[in-house]
This record gives sequence, C-alpha cells and structure tokens, in this order.
Amino acid sequence: MTHTVLATLPSGHRIARARREDLPTIIALLVDDPLGSTREDPSDPAYVRAFETLDADPAHLLVVVLDEGDQVAATMQVSIIPGLSRRGATRAQLEGVRVADAARGTGVGAAMVEWSIDYAREQGANLMQLTTDKARTRAHTFYERLGFVASHEGMKAML
Amino acid sequence: MTHTVLATLPSGHRIARARREDLPTIIALLVDDPLGSTREDPSDPAYVRAFETLDADPAHLLVVVLDEGDQVAATMQVSIIPGLSRRGATRAQLEGVRVADAARGTGVGAAMVEWSIDYAREQGANLMQLTTDKARTRAHTFYERLGFVASHEGMKAML
Repeated sequence: MTHTVLATLPSGHRIARARREDLPTIIALLVDDPLGSTREDPSDPAYVRAFETLDADPAHLLVVVLDEGDQVAATMQVSIIPGLSRRGATRAQLEGVRVADAARGTGVGAAMVEWSIDYAREQGANLMQLTTDKARTRAHTFYERLGFVASHEGMKAML
Repeated sequence: MTHTVLATLPSGHRIARARREDLPTIIALLVDDPLGSTREDPSDPAYVRAFETLDADPAHLLVVVLDEGDQVAATMQVSIIPGLSRRGATRAQLEGVRVADAARGTGVGAAMVEWSIDYAREQGANLMQLTTDKARTRAHTFYERLGFVASHEGMKAML
C-alpha cells in the first residue's frame, strides 16, 4: 500500500498518514529516546492494538514524515478533543512527537508541528496542547519557538 | 429526564452523566473561577455544540456530582485517548474539573477524581493525565495527594 500524502514540505519531505507497515519504524523512534528506551518494548502486542484504534477513529491522526528516500524522518499523533471550558473550545493534542536522529536540526520537526497547527485549525480546534517531560529542556525551547507557552503543570498518574 | 447515576459516594453524593439540562450549571462553575471568569462567556453557543459532541462520543464522559438536594457540587470531563508511546498506552485525560464553592473542602472533589481513576481503569487506561495552570497551586497539592506527579510541562498555543 502506498502512503496517503497529506502535504509536501518545502524541503521535499512528505507528511503522510501512518500505515500499519510503518509501525515498526515508529516504535523504533519511540525506543531511540532517553526516556523511551526505559519504557518501550517493541515486542508488546499493545502497539498494534493501539494503532488499529487510532487508525479507525477520525478524532486521531497518526502521521509519518517521509524523506526523499521514503525513510521516516519524524512522527506524531494529533488528537482532536472536544470540551466545555474556554467557551466550548476544541483542543488539538500532540502526543508521541519524535524526530529521527538523522533528521535533527534540519527543521523537519518544526515544519511537521507547523503543519499540525494548520490541520488542527481545519478540524475546528481553538487551542493546541501537549505535555513534555520536564527533563526534555531542548523540547521546551523547540515548542516555545513554535508559539507554545509552558503555562501549565503536566500531571500524570500511572494506573 | 432523570440523571443516569454512575456511582454513589459514601457522602451520599451521586456521580451522574451530565444531561443537556445541566449545561447552564456546569458553565456557571466554569465562570465562577479566577481564570474562567476572564475567558468564559455563558452566551456563547459553542458550549451547546461542545456538549453534543461530547455526549455523542463514548470516548468522552462528562459528569456532574449531585448532592442530596440534586444540586451540582462538582463536574469533570474524562476522555479516553489511545496512543502508541509507553507500549501503546491508553490515556485517560481529565479536563474541566471544577468543584462548587459550597462543596470545597468536603472531600467531594477528591472522591470524584478517585472515581474517575476506577472508571479509567475499566476503560483500559494505563495512565491518567491532566494539565493545570501554574497559578493553581492549591490544585497541584490536590492532585499530588491523589497520586499525580507534576513530571511534565503543560504547553498550550492558541490557534
């Protein structure tokens, strides 16, 4: 199956809907990460179930960014979440944003997130949000340059 | 229409699925808040559209906590979000958590969030998450007591 291309970036990279066949590559990007290396396990069948759930629900979009050789340079999930607060604001939420080592510093990550902002607006979102581990100080700078403000505490509880 | 009661707390409060008729009361709770007072406007028709979207999608649950006189003591939204990271973890996300002034300090807010943790586990969630404005220092203590850790920056961008 060929990729469904959603946008082509000035760099020549294409943003595409992730396919089932991209899953091992996406998981490898999640593992190849200082935090991910301790909490991911590619053999867990839960990844496939999660992919199928995401893929079946139009509220969620999992994308890959492909370079000219069809290699995955970056990935992210955009989820659209309705809500009452802030005058019934629809939120777009980013999860699992990862850029491949070889693509760091090329601007492809920023271009991907900028594209997601346009996509979120088209989906009627009024607000984009994400949480990023306090240890990821470079990520904070990355998102601040893109217009995000670290106005909130991101709190988590394991169930 | 009577409320669909999801649980009865030891205090006698009932946790119920929010009905269309509860919307003005829920909006009043969003307005009666130091941050909400500047950014909510009860006349905005977007609240009704947001309620209908939430109500139609089983991924989202909007609840009210009712006291013995059927007054709304608290409200929150629980959204179930699939994802790939953390071994395909399903996340339960809290939004719009508000406790009525008269019900503060009674433990009803904590009991509501504790109920949501059980609900999230039943929905297959592995992780619960929320963001709370850095100015809400009492909220941070509230959530820390309930087992949440402020491990992340919560970043937002207005679209």
